[in-house]
Amino acid sequence: MYLSTIIGMVAAFGLMLLAILHGSPLTIFFNVPALLIVLGGTTGVALVHYPFKDLLEAFRVASKTVFHKEITVNEYIVQLMGFANKARKEGILGLQDEIDKIEDPFLVKSIQMAVDGQEPETLSSMLNTEIAYIQRRHSKGANIFISLATYAPAMGMVGTLIGLVQMLQNMDDPSKIGPAMAVALLTTFYGAIIANVVCLPLAGKLKNRSESEILIKSLIIDGMQSILSGENPRIIEQKLHAFISPKLRESTFTR
Amino acid sequence: MYLSTIIGMVAAFGLMLLAILHGSPLTIFFNVPALLIVLGGTTGVALVHYPFKDLLEAFRVASKTVFHKEITVNEYIVQLMGFANKARKEGILGLQDEIDKIEDPFLVKSIQMAVDGQEPETLSSMLNTEIAYIQRRHSKGANIFISLATYAPAMGMVGTLIGLVQMLQNMDDPSKIGPAMAVALLTTFYGAIIANVVCLPLAGKLKNRSESEILIKSLIIDGMQSILSGENPRIIEQKLHAFISPKLRESTFTR
Amino acid sequence: MYLSTIIGMVAAFGLMLLAILHGSPLTIFFNVPALLIVLGGTTGVALVHYPFKDLLEAFRVASKTVFHKEITVNEYIVQLMGFANKARKEGILGLQDEIDKIEDPFLVKSIQMAVDGQEPETLSSMLNTEIAYIQRRHSKGANIFISLATYAPAMGMVGTLIGLVQMLQNMDDPSKIGPAMAVALLTTFYGAIIANVVCLPLAGKLKNRSESEILIKSLIIDGMQSILSGENPRIIEQKLHAFISPKLRESTFTR
Amino acid sequence: MYLSTIIGMVAAFGLMLLAILHGSPLTIFFNVPALLIVLGGTTGVALVHYPFKDLLEAFRVASKTVFHKEITVNEYIVQLMGFANKARKEGILGLQDEIDKIEDPFLVKSIQMAVDGQEPETLSSMLNTEIAYIQRRHSKGANIFISLATYAPAMGMVGTLIGLVQMLQNMDDPSKIGPAMAVALLTTFYGAIIANVVCLPLAGKLKNRSESEILIKSLIIDGMQSILSGENPRIIEQKLHAFISPKLRESTFTR
Amino acid sequence: MYLSTIIGMVAAFGLMLLAILHGSPLTIFFNVPALLIVLGGTTGVALVHYPFKDLLEAFRVASKTVFHKEITVNEYIVQLMGFANKARKEGILGLQDEIDKIEDPFLVKSIQMAVDGQEPETLSSMLNTEIAYIQRRHSKGANIFISLATYAPAMGMVGTLIGLVQMLQNMDDPSKIGPAMAVALLTTFYGAIIANVVCLPLAGKLKNRSESEILIKSLIIDGMQSILSGENPRIIEQKLHAFISPKLRESTFTR
Repeated sequence: MYLSTIIGMVAAFGLMLLAILHGSPLTIFFNVPALLIVLGGTTGVALVHYPFKDLLEAFRVASKTVFHKEITVNEYIVQLMGFANKARKEGILGLQDEIDKIEDPFLVKSIQMAVDGQEPETLSSMLNTEIAYIQRRHSKGANIFISLATYAPAMGMVGTLIGLVQMLQNMDDPSKIGPAMAVALLTTFYGAIIANVVCLPLAGKLKNRSESEILIKSLIIDGMQSILSGENPRIIEQKLHAFISPKLRESTFTR
Repeated sequence: MYLSTIIGMVAAFGLMLLAILHGSPLTIFFNVPALLIVLGGTTGVALVHYPFKDLLEAFRVASKTVFHKEITVNEYIVQLMGFANKARKEGILGLQDEIDKIEDPFLVKSIQMAVDGQEPETLSSMLNTEIAYIQRRHSKGANIFISLATYAPAMGMVGTLIGLVQMLQNMDDPSKIGPAMAVALLTTFYGAIIANVVCLPLAGKLKNRSESEILIKSLIIDGMQSILSGENPRIIEQKLHAFISPKLRESTFTR
Repeated sequence: MYLSTIIGMVAAFGLMLLAILHGSPLTIFFNVPALLIVLGGTTGVALVHYPFKDLLEAFRVASKTVFHKEITVNEYIVQLMGFANKARKEGILGLQDEIDKIEDPFLVKSIQMAVDGQEPETLSSMLNTEIAYIQRRHSKGANIFISLATYAPAMGMVGTLIGLVQMLQNMDDPSKIGPAMAVALLTTFYGAIIANVVCLPLAGKLKNRSESEILIKSLIIDGMQSILSGENPRIIEQKLHAFISPKLRESTFTR
Repeated sequence: MYLSTIIGMVAAFGLMLLAILHGSPLTIFFNVPALLIVLGGTTGVALVHYPFKDLLEAFRVASKTVFHKEITVNEYIVQLMGFANKARKEGILGLQDEIDKIEDPFLVKSIQMAVDGQEPETLSSMLNTEIAYIQRRHSKGANIFISLATYAPAMGMVGTLIGLVQMLQNMDDPSKIGPAMAVALLTTFYGAIIANVVCLPLAGKLKNRSESEILIKSLIIDGMQSILSGENPRIIEQKLHAFISPKLRESTFTR
Repeated sequence: MYLSTIIGMVAAFGLMLLAILHGSPLTIFFNVPALLIVLGGTTGVALVHYPFKDLLEAFRVASKTVFHKEITVNEYIVQLMGFANKARKEGILGLQDEIDKIEDPFLVKSIQMAVDGQEPETLSSMLNTEIAYIQRRHSKGANIFISLATYAPAMGMVGTLIGLVQMLQNMDDPSKIGPAMAVALLTTFYGAIIANVVCLPLAGKLKNRSESEILIKSLIIDGMQSILSGENPRIIEQKLHAFISPKLRESTFTR
């Protein structure tokens, strides 16, 4: 995920740069007041919509997501199968000493709850509530970028309208009409780039990332509930394999 | 939330002002008939859609929301944990004298119902009905601003069409075409600002605010239901912590 | 609701008229073929989409809604509390002689069912089916106006395209280009007004009205089910108060 | 439904024709390559999206729907009440000889199942599965027309872009610019008509038709389930009346 | 499905080619920088949104789908009825030797589970989880093409804005304005074609394909559950026939 994001960003901006330089110097696409009205205006409007700390958090999560390693569901299945086999031999309490070896805090919590003697249904219902609120926080992040992708082109249009009105009120010198309109269009250009090259793909990335995380957490809940219910490990594996594509399924039993 | 809203509004309008003044006097962006048709027309259309008192209420709630302090879910969890511990020691009736110390009317109501001897399920179902109708009233407010954000650009377009038709019918003097078109574009400009800088972010803010409130109320219901059911305070805390992000969770027991 | 609708309509159309008259005679905005293509075309397309009697019914309901008095939920709560108290004293059959005093046919039906000895669950399930189909019929009405608000601007665009093609094929006399384009824009103008000033707000009004009615009917069902179940009137009142905003709640017991 | 569809189609196309003829000969709106690119391109794209037989089926169903007589729910209620009364007197098996008199195959099937001794719940669940898949097939038909209404204007825009690029590359003779642009706009014109005057209203008509059919089928299921459960005919009638508007309800008992 | 897709693609592109060649040489529609910015930019943005392997997978699945033979639900019903009859005669274990003759891995898995002695409810619930995650993977593929259909026109607009700004800054030689604008429009043209002629219909095709597959899998689950429950083959057939249109139903019993 890391590499493709970097390559994607570089490719998109690089190709636009090439296309620009092919026809003119870059400077004519750089205009401070136009930048100010789109970037500043979008930020201002976003601050009315969202509290400052939510905006900051969205950018923090997005940058973390860009540099995040793709999660492999299979490793989780193998790990859960290990717990299933251990619990079958040593009982649920045998999982106690696994907790220190695990990194994923959600998995730690679910094992702790199992070891603490929660009923399978209670464990499942409590962790599902947790997932529901995680999902809410995730979609809040994606929604912030979707809002920015709505506000940026709108501020771009507002900027273009300002430029057009000024140009139209002042058409004495026809030779200035072209450049004035060019500048007016720059805000629309900035708005389109902020929305389509930055915000929408980041919103999409956050959604994808959230879906992967939720899938893993649902897998953990289903797995731990089955382990707690003392189900047969082969059945548990069959259940967990339902979460992934058939060609990714590797049985821990045939190895 | 307070500060960021003010800063956001000032930034968005200030930057537009700067961008305008950078190229022309402000006066050419000010046109009374254009303002009348957009502001008045939007209000008129909104009055067909919504009763007057609903519109008024939406603006009242929005202005209140702008100046509203952000709610901290954590404080509610601490408060509910206090009740859980007290109820465990003194019984549910021990919560009676807590009621006077609480400000939140929804929390007061739920404790009163608990003290009055309601069953956990009845309490939960009655308060959830209440939440459902609160949510409806909230989304009504947000929807009013979304409607305004639809009607304002539409009235802006209607105004621009009026200006264009008048200009096109009267093109004898070419030197007047530019300014006439500039004026015609002003209604589109006003409509875009009303929609994107005022109504949409306010609608978004109302939705965010509603979600926070509903989250708190759901937390109260879950907490009170668990307290009434006599669950272990540690379990209750675990349940309530599911509502918030792991890094915000502070156990009242380790303190 | 009555007054605000009239004021809204008058304001929206009056301001457009003022804006027009400020710059030109009204006559240049009046063009019979343009009106024909938008009004007639929209009606024609709507007749393909909806049977004639559904269109007629939608307009009938819309005009009735405009002149409809706002419903006060509170009066219904007071009325239901009266039934609750009477049923507690005289038994369900005591409600028989209330039926003649009631206007609302849905309330009549629900009391009749209660008096006829229906179980609370049967009453609730049968009346909820009825609500589901009422909701369907209501949303059909609103959807018709939303469809008209889609077709009208489309027919407006079709008309403008016809005008543009004719103008472009015939550009020998440059002095006629302006007026020809002005006329071409009129269909877009008509389409925008029909959609945004007439159909969308009426669709919105119908939806609001439907929601109020459904809320009242849900209140009646909940109330009658509680009365039939012989619940304590104070509890019933608490339940019914959940339907309305806290500041509108007036207990019938403290009076 | 028949008449209003025909009138609607004739009105919409007739008025466009009138509007065209009022300003120019019809021939300037007729251009074979433009027609080819919009009609053919839309068909081509649709063939990528849908298998040929689904497209054909959608047109077959649409043409059948145009000429379809409106269904009267009331007649079905009367028919079901007849079965209810007969089943009450002669038992469920008495419905056997009704089967030959019925045209509606869904009603035939439900009675056959009842006579075959199915439990009310089995009957209801099996027929509801059937409704779910009928609904799917119906909405597939409507979705095909909605897709066509998306592709047609897109192909129209593609055609206009082709025309514009060719015109802009070849602006030596200014007198040809107008007519060239007129021809370029024709594809947009065709696309708008195909989408808004043909496909969208037909999609709407199919949806309306589907909803009527589903309502009837739900009515049949509810009615047969009640008959099988041996409910009182008056109660059954009350249940079935919930499906229709109060003013359409005619009791079979007061007659 | 195979043939119609090929014909559709050829028709759509062929007709555009004809329309182009009718008015100008093809070369004026071919511009390398414009292609680079749309194709490369869209790919770049897509790589930010999706990991590289997901994009690749989407194209792989799409190309497979284009060449996929339409699935016939009827054959599955016949096959399941064969199992039902065999299971009735020889018991569930009799299905063991059918497994080798089946190609569909989902059907193999469901029979294996039945033979392994799973309860009907467990089988149904485990396979339904599997369907839910298959559906998720399918809709991911379709969503990738829908995203591409959003990004391509956006990159097209960005390219056109770049061309317009460059043209407007450089209007000294009026004879160059036309060709410069023509080139600027090419990116919009490319974006429209990528979106509407390639990505949207492929997304639609993937969705149709997914729905067919899910329908078959649901049919298998319902069938196997009924077989496991030992239901009467005639009832099973009636149940399975609910999945398909009445005119496609061919009873295996009357043959």
